[in-house]
Amino acid sequence: MNESQRPGFALPRVLDRLARQEPAALERLFRLLAIPSISTDPAHHDSCIAAAECCAGALREIGFEARVEPTLGKPMVVGHWRAARSEGPRPHVLFYGHYDVQPPDPLDEWIAQPFAPRLVEDPRYGPVIVARGASDDKGQLMTFIEAARAWLEEHGQLPVDVSVLIEGEEESGSPSLAPFLAAHGDELKADIALVCDTGQWDAETPAVTAFLRGLAFSEIAIRGPSRDLHSGLYGGPAINPLRVLSEILAALHDDKGRVAIAGFYDEVRVPSPAQLTEWRALGFDAGGFLGGVGLSQAAGETGFSILEQLWSRPTAEINGIVGGYGGPGTKTVIPAHATAKLSFRLVPGQEPAKVLAGLRRFVEDRLPADASVSFTHEGGSPAVGFDTDAPHFRAASRALEAEWGKRPTIMGCGASIPIVESFRSRLGMDSLLIGFALDDDRIHSPNEKYNLRSFNKGARSWARILAELGVIDADVSL
Amino acid sequence: MNESQRPGFALPRVLDRLARQEPAALERLFRLLAIPSISTDPAHHDSCIAAAECCAGALREIGFEARVEPTLGKPMVVGHWRAARSEGPRPHVLFYGHYDVQPPDPLDEWIAQPFAPRLVEDPRYGPVIVARGASDDKGQLMTFIEAARAWLEEHGQLPVDVSVLIEGEEESGSPSLAPFLAAHGDELKADIALVCDTGQWDAETPAVTAFLRGLAFSEIAIRGPSRDLHSGLYGGPAINPLRVLSEILAALHDDKGRVAIAGFYDEVRVPSPAQLTEWRALGFDAGGFLGGVGLSQAAGETGFSILEQLWSRPTAEINGIVGGYGGPGTKTVIPAHATAKLSFRLVPGQEPAKVLAGLRRFVEDRLPADASVSFTHEGGSPAVGFDTDAPHFRAASRALEAEWGKRPTIMGCGASIPIVESFRSRLGMDSLLIGFALDDDRIHSPNEKYNLRSFNKGARSWARILAELGVIDADVSL
Repeated sequence: MNESQRPGFALPRVLDRLARQEPAALERLFRLLAIPSISTDPAHHDSCIAAAECCAGALREIGFEARVEPTLGKPMVVGHWRAARSEGPRPHVLFYGHYDVQPPDPLDEWIAQPFAPRLVEDPRYGPVIVARGASDDKGQLMTFIEAARAWLEEHGQLPVDVSVLIEGEEESGSPSLAPFLAAHGDELKADIALVCDTGQWDAETPAVTAFLRGLAFSEIAIRGPSRDLHSGLYGGPAINPLRVLSEILAALHDDKGRVAIAGFYDEVRVPSPAQLTEWRALGFDAGGFLGGVGLSQAAGETGFSILEQLWSRPTAEINGIVGGYGGPGTKTVIPAHATAKLSFRLVPGQEPAKVLAGLRRFVEDRLPADASVSFTHEGGSPAVGFDTDAPHFRAASRALEAEWGKRPTIMGCGASIPIVESFRSRLGMDSLLIGFALDDDRIHSPNEKYNLRSFNKGARSWARILAELGVIDADVSL
Repeated sequence: MNESQRPGFALPRVLDRLARQEPAALERLFRLLAIPSISTDPAHHDSCIAAAECCAGALREIGFEARVEPTLGKPMVVGHWRAARSEGPRPHVLFYGHYDVQPPDPLDEWIAQPFAPRLVEDPRYGPVIVARGASDDKGQLMTFIEAARAWLEEHGQLPVDVSVLIEGEEESGSPSLAPFLAAHGDELKADIALVCDTGQWDAETPAVTAFLRGLAFSEIAIRGPSRDLHSGLYGGPAINPLRVLSEILAALHDDKGRVAIAGFYDEVRVPSPAQLTEWRALGFDAGGFLGGVGLSQAAGETGFSILEQLWSRPTAEINGIVGGYGGPGTKTVIPAHATAKLSFRLVPGQEPAKVLAGLRRFVEDRLPADASVSFTHEGGSPAVGFDTDAPHFRAASRALEAEWGKRPTIMGCGASIPIVESFRSRLGMDSLLIGFALDDDRIHSPNEKYNLRSFNKGARSWARILAELGVIDADVSL
């Protein structure tokens, strides 16, 4: 164990250095924020390349081998820092972030230009960084690079081997990610991924996201008559696919809000009593959560709190229905077919393919005579639940507690995060989901911000996490 | 009573004349069929005027006062023939037809040009007239004008006073009809309207259509969250308007196919036992009716035959649903709102306004917390049921029986016929719906045809009906 791996000794100097270089770190972030790297807009292709070069340059400057690797879309930034071989095998982490940003529209709602980053005094938080990408994800990814910079500039090395993957298509569906992981998996595979694209529980409470719901989706098309019919000439005797569809969809839930597909809950794993107790103690603001979108009552499964519903219970949702006449006015048609897009949020234990098979049986069992059904656009991915007792998980928790003065909240996330699923399924690698964003950062909206405190304490948090990961017994697999 | 009003004496000479002038009558029809009077296509506006002039010219030629009256759309043809005043009050009928036709597309499915009318030998029917409009409605309306021509040319007068209204927008929604009836109602009001735009029961059996279902329609919009939500971040606690809508629509029918709106059937008038016995004796081809549109089983109210369902039972139909994501692929959205277009076919006794009020209560009673509903695009018209014992009805039935050798079928029609409702509501005038079209005339489709026999016997039928209407006791109101 070298000096850099003794956190009690090496870390204070790293944290001191981070404090001294705060103004320079902010300047480096502003340079990245000034690049309008909007991945969905072809007009900004060159800006995406510029942002990738900026990230790679920052890595090289602090001692990483780094390159900008072309794809069919936006390039990937890949970097590595490894200790000299003589030191023997060390823990190896892969840090993930993305340099691309959402379009800034509507522009006229911004208080200033979205790509002219600046500090604005916020009445609640003090100085906040305002720019598109300030929080999602340029500010977040730079917390890690600044932490690595401080370690390398102070000690000439990092407590663990670090690879970095920064993509440029996260905001446009990551089409290049799967082929890239397939081609470069061996190079990128580490003991654990550090994904910095999530948030804290609140401004004072750090968080690690450990439960992500999965997804299964399908489009069902119900067919009845061989052509659209006039509802006067056929109404009554002719079956109406919109009515058949409505009756099937209405049967999807029972009167307790449970999904009525046979076997749907059979393999659902429920959180531990301790976990549930923790969640209940969080003081979740149910009124604010619902009120923010014009609602007043939780509509889900009875007997479960909103957080339990979002983080640990599966759902069935109708995402779209199309059938018959949708134009202005009236058309008295009995349509030949009607379709619905359905999706299911899954929790650990549930398999997408089994859920979709259950859906197919459910629909087929309810088809009346003369109706037929087809299922298309099926897909999905399982939920992710990480072992919160794993050494790396406990190491990160200790580091966050040391920085923030309270234990991190072990959160769930109702949505899947595709990169986490990709790392797991393609590289067999778990992730630590740690980020410093706040719910009111206005990501994807005008006047996106990142608290200056989030940026600075985020970098300090990573500096501590790297130190803690470095002293995990090398015999214990990460 | 003059000679023309003694059917037993005057009619044979009229029928003889019709037989002699068959070739000339066909020539006159072909001239009208050659005009491409497609009302929906602005490129054919001049053809519509030409068709109107052709009809007016035919009326003038046989002694009518006739004019082509402009509207904001296609002109109306209005004609009158009245006996000399000295003869005192006589029955007065208004004949209705339309000179406009459907577009002929797809053109490549026609065996010859749609506006080059010709006789084609049909293996089943012998000679048939093939052209766009041959049946709907140029051939049908000319049956009446030829009958009037024979009466006037043979006897110099008609058995009743006759007004004629031939419109040019029937195939495009009749937008000018309501203002025209409002402006010219006094001129057009007669004792009864003769509407020649329907069909026979079959090629050997004439028919009078006496029951037309009405219509009530509404568009319901269910609102939930104040904006579209991500189904991962909100799925579970957030109410989904598509699910609310599906549950309400699924409840619209009970398990016997009856509409579940409270009071929906309260004022429904049922056909007489004699009427039902007649319908049951018709030998309706249920298999052919359903099989023609890819179905095998009647899906309507249990306990009612298909004809009873179509002609005498009300319905509720979902004509369209729109909500959430309808594009290709998947989008895991919980939409802020979802809409459905509904329509009800009504039978005599039901009032559209009451039905729509019942729908509103039905939906509002089933709204969960945080859901709201609005109702737009509401409208409708009541069903029409004519008194089949009225003198004019019996007179027409006698005439048809004399021509065809069997009693006419008293038919219903599942759809409303707007002109009939307009005559009733705007002019307080009942209609006699008599036509000679057959189900296989391919109206609105390529190779539309009208049997030559339908044309000739149609004219003979009208000649007889005019005679019978002329001897109704003048003291008995038509």
